[in-house]
Amino acid sequence: MPRVAVLGAAGFAGALCARLVEGHPSLELTMVTARSDAGRRLDHIYPRHRVRRELETYDPDRVAESADAALVAYPHGAAAPVVEELLNRGLKVVDLSADFRVPLDLYERWYQPHEAPGLLDRAVYGLTETHREEIRGADLVAGPGCYPTAALLALWPLRELARDVVVDAKSGVSGAGRGATESTHFVSVAENMNAYKVEGHRHRAELEAELGRDLPITFIPHLVPIDQGLLASAYVTPAHAVSADEVRDLFRAAYEDEPFVELADSPPGVRDVRETNICRVHATVEPATGRVMAFAAIDNLWKGAAGQAVQDLNLMLGLDEREGLE
Amino acid sequence: MPRVAVLGAAGFAGALCARLVEGHPSLELTMVTARSDAGRRLDHIYPRHRVRRELETYDPDRVAESADAALVAYPHGAAAPVVEELLNRGLKVVDLSADFRVPLDLYERWYQPHEAPGLLDRAVYGLTETHREEIRGADLVAGPGCYPTAALLALWPLRELARDVVVDAKSGVSGAGRGATESTHFVSVAENMNAYKVEGHRHRAELEAELGRDLPITFIPHLVPIDQGLLASAYVTPAHAVSADEVRDLFRAAYEDEPFVELADSPPGVRDVRETNICRVHATVEPATGRVMAFAAIDNLWKGAAGQAVQDLNLMLGLDEREGLE
Amino acid sequence: MPRVAVLGAAGFAGALCARLVEGHPSLELTMVTARSDAGRRLDHIYPRHRVRRELETYDPDRVAESADAALVAYPHGAAAPVVEELLNRGLKVVDLSADFRVPLDLYERWYQPHEAPGLLDRAVYGLTETHREEIRGADLVAGPGCYPTAALLALWPLRELARDVVVDAKSGVSGAGRGATESTHFVSVAENMNAYKVEGHRHRAELEAELGRDLPITFIPHLVPIDQGLLASAYVTPAHAVSADEVRDLFRAAYEDEPFVELADSPPGVRDVRETNICRVHATVEPATGRVMAFAAIDNLWKGAAGQAVQDLNLMLGLDEREGLE
Amino acid sequence: MPRVAVLGAAGFAGALCARLVEGHPSLELTMVTARSDAGRRLDHIYPRHRVRRELETYDPDRVAESADAALVAYPHGAAAPVVEELLNRGLKVVDLSADFRVPLDLYERWYQPHEAPGLLDRAVYGLTETHREEIRGADLVAGPGCYPTAALLALWPLRELARDVVVDAKSGVSGAGRGATESTHFVSVAENMNAYKVEGHRHRAELEAELGRDLPITFIPHLVPIDQGLLASAYVTPAHAVSADEVRDLFRAAYEDEPFVELADSPPGVRDVRETNICRVHATVEPATGRVMAFAAIDNLWKGAAGQAVQDLNLMLGLDEREGLE
Repeated sequence: MPRVAVLGAAGFAGALCARLVEGHPSLELTMVTARSDAGRRLDHIYPRHRVRRELETYDPDRVAESADAALVAYPHGAAAPVVEELLNRGLKVVDLSADFRVPLDLYERWYQPHEAPGLLDRAVYGLTETHREEIRGADLVAGPGCYPTAALLALWPLRELARDVVVDAKSGVSGAGRGATESTHFVSVAENMNAYKVEGHRHRAELEAELGRDLPITFIPHLVPIDQGLLASAYVTPAHAVSADEVRDLFRAAYEDEPFVELADSPPGVRDVRETNICRVHATVEPATGRVMAFAAIDNLWKGAAGQAVQDLNLMLGLDEREGLE
Repeated sequence: MPRVAVLGAAGFAGALCARLVEGHPSLELTMVTARSDAGRRLDHIYPRHRVRRELETYDPDRVAESADAALVAYPHGAAAPVVEELLNRGLKVVDLSADFRVPLDLYERWYQPHEAPGLLDRAVYGLTETHREEIRGADLVAGPGCYPTAALLALWPLRELARDVVVDAKSGVSGAGRGATESTHFVSVAENMNAYKVEGHRHRAELEAELGRDLPITFIPHLVPIDQGLLASAYVTPAHAVSADEVRDLFRAAYEDEPFVELADSPPGVRDVRETNICRVHATVEPATGRVMAFAAIDNLWKGAAGQAVQDLNLMLGLDEREGLE
Repeated sequence: MPRVAVLGAAGFAGALCARLVEGHPSLELTMVTARSDAGRRLDHIYPRHRVRRELETYDPDRVAESADAALVAYPHGAAAPVVEELLNRGLKVVDLSADFRVPLDLYERWYQPHEAPGLLDRAVYGLTETHREEIRGADLVAGPGCYPTAALLALWPLRELARDVVVDAKSGVSGAGRGATESTHFVSVAENMNAYKVEGHRHRAELEAELGRDLPITFIPHLVPIDQGLLASAYVTPAHAVSADEVRDLFRAAYEDEPFVELADSPPGVRDVRETNICRVHATVEPATGRVMAFAAIDNLWKGAAGQAVQDLNLMLGLDEREGLE
Repeated sequence: MPRVAVLGAAGFAGALCARLVEGHPSLELTMVTARSDAGRRLDHIYPRHRVRRELETYDPDRVAESADAALVAYPHGAAAPVVEELLNRGLKVVDLSADFRVPLDLYERWYQPHEAPGLLDRAVYGLTETHREEIRGADLVAGPGCYPTAALLALWPLRELARDVVVDAKSGVSGAGRGATESTHFVSVAENMNAYKVEGHRHRAELEAELGRDLPITFIPHLVPIDQGLLASAYVTPAHAVSADEVRDLFRAAYEDEPFVELADSPPGVRDVRETNICRVHATVEPATGRVMAFAAIDNLWKGAAGQAVQDLNLMLGLDEREGLE
């Protein structure tokens, strides 16, 4: 049974990775690490995950002794050197940060100088529904961002049709991470909602990389008072008139065999997918304007992070991609 | 001091009308009516409004004896005959329903056969910022819908510039009214959000009527887990390239003297305007696409309903429009 | 594999019963019934449970043909006749209503005339931790109320010690059921909390029946703005002074082998047990007064209703009581 | 018109003090100070309060030049030296911290060594309903804690009758202050509730000081997912049997002339008092046990902090205590 280490397990996504691996029938969780929380037990930070294991300090050799694969849930920039150390020691790695999601120029425009640019060619973008075959053969997979996961699943079947795109996305607060800040304070969020980073959010880079840089895409995130859940509302000006039935056919063709995409007859609620790895999608055409619209709901910590990382790892290890996720 | 009756005061908007009139320094609240709640005291239904007054059954002659003006907070369809009876008895009326907001053809396409079509010409659309002078002389004002209020305030300064518009709007649950239904149940709403009426929401009619029927406008409402608050995110494809500064100048020119529009340097949160009559707006340009964006936040029960109705009534009665609203 | 019918599956508890049985490795879900929702698919009402099965109308003979056991999630009063029909046809039954939880005199004082009093002697109270052996042999088990489940688990180890008890309990809104009423409307609940039924809540009857009628117990429920979760804070005046260590020993002795009771070092949060069948408990002594205190958190729909019903059924059918609940 | 400075105006309570003074018809806000936020505009931190004024660094001489009175919203320990400097310069002071609420021995048991013990005799406890006459003549008033405000208003009419008391109190998150911590993070609070500080919360000191040290009082706070609002549920074992009518008479006698206490026929909700200075109370007797119960709801930032401070200041300055609070 493959042994798996989860690095950065004290964060929201990392902790869920640890829980999913520990409950996985075909994987063995052998190590969890953290930086400032090293020495604490993971179930003392997250009682609900019930992973009764102590957080260790990261050491690449010890990880390599303990594990055949690693899920790395570090901040961007911090992830790349660690990923490099683990790949050099022969582990398979799913990196949940942004470090290997996009080409170098996009990365350096939206993020910072890259710490391990030589690995970018080896990395596969981990959106299973669009890169499944490459993921199977990969030893480095970049887990997509939460917003791009929902946005891309909403837009993928429309990519040939789209001439102009607006994505209005709304996320729960867990997407902002465990850091306690003014903007994650309960009093800032309750009974509130607002757009943010309207001049440009980094997740746009993934949309450009995956959908092509020529398509005009407006992408605006909003914060809403829920903990887990993300909804992408995509408004697409089509290159030519299409009917709602034609749109639904495009989605059916793209997703009918997908284990974690659910096509719904009406707009999905994030509650429908809470604590699941499912992306629930509804697509239609606005009669008044002919605009094509697709609404995609995910749990940002599951399909938007940890669940998708396990789905990727399953594929990389030759397992059924659904294992441990149902 | 003008005497005011509030009809339909047991609903969310009507109850707030009653509270605002009762606390108003230059108006006297003389009657509150309800249908199924007649006989109950309004403060027993809404302790927080502290309007210690019994709800009466509607009778047009008694209203005419007691009041010089009326705020009518009835459902659409039910409002028109009542408005007609009161106008015939010489009262000034602000109608909060949809019955007098749009031309007959739009009304009958989106709603139902009109009960008092002869009055449509007399009615003024009560968005103060765009119809102030007409409101001053009117005896019938149609209070705008909550969604159109925010959407129109976001779009008005851009109406010459806009070639294509997407409005993604998000509302708290009080906008759905006091009726207890599956979709207003706490358990349906908490930790949830979803688009709804994606095939066409009635409030679109007001956007068409006010902005012109030739402009393609996608308007999609969403329900989010807050009680009071509405955010309209408007994405506008401009007819020609504009800078963020030029966009801000348009908004400044339109609103700098407006008592209830606040121009913000960053995207507004609905919490910033909760329990106020203020619309807080931020407009800018997305660098990557040149798309013009405007975000408008209101309290759907205040600026989106009762507060705006009192603002209208102030103007109709020759008072300072800010009275009773600060 | 035992075949199970879930009756009243359109309610919150019944729907979760259906999901738990459907996902159970050793049970087969063969029928779901509902009254007003008969004919609808269960996953159309509750997409998140993903039970893709049509709700049927109840017919005792058809249930008896299809199932070896039934979970009955009917309102009190309506349950008893149905339970009788099913027992007469040889099924094992867990009844989630109040109809078989307490002796006849308590039932008729707190509820109404009993519809099947002859069955009361056959019924076992389904709090696994205190009635496990009786449940194993039973063909009729009465699933405890949500409040009594948490309160009894907080008080059971203290029952010899207690001279006087106050239970201040707080429940999420799902405990009030699926009915859309003024008190379950999102706008009534959000940013609110209040005590209710302070003159006497029916669930007190179960505390009297289980703990003895001589012990003075104040039991006051509160509604708080969460969907699933229930916290019982129990304040116990001890018959003699005890230390916190002695109290913890009592709880350890009572629960250390319990699969679904978790002893915590600090007061539990309901989030720690959300979507689990676990009751998480912390007990201690207030230094200033010597008062013994125990705090018990459950998910009211799991351990407080459907989860516990499945736990009971597991025992009745000779299965491991943890099956299908982890 | 008395000039007022608000010190520590960047915190939740201080910011509301600033807003209330600025909107006060008989007070003039002349200065707001902050430590780490000095230099920022208060309306940039709290748009909703709309106090368009820059936060200054504290300097006792400058405060004394600018103001006749001060509201000090500092953490305990930090407040006392500042209060001393201002009193020495002739200002009247309401201190919202714990520094002057209780006698020296209680303070040093629950808090820390006192920084200005010589002033304790001069300080009056600012619960208006129980210390009104002393407040009128005072130059130093200690604003009560939020929990004690609600608990004392629930218990005051019962103080002669009570033989044993349990107070189970529940607070919204704003009571924990503006500091961003793990326990104020939205994700920690949403869909959660828990008791905390069960071994002894500092606010107990005020209950002991005001109600007498001989009365056994259990006081346990809970955190619930709301922003503003606090409910104290008080369970009182009476010295002798009393009827619900007798209890209500006690409350009527105590509070019928109080401008900010509202006696309710049913248990109050915190929503009923949100954004008001009102304490809403319901008292009754539990039929089954004879226990006396009182439920008191306040807005923790208004009656529990800033509103009450302004009420105190009104009295100290010879104004109507309701001014600026309705």
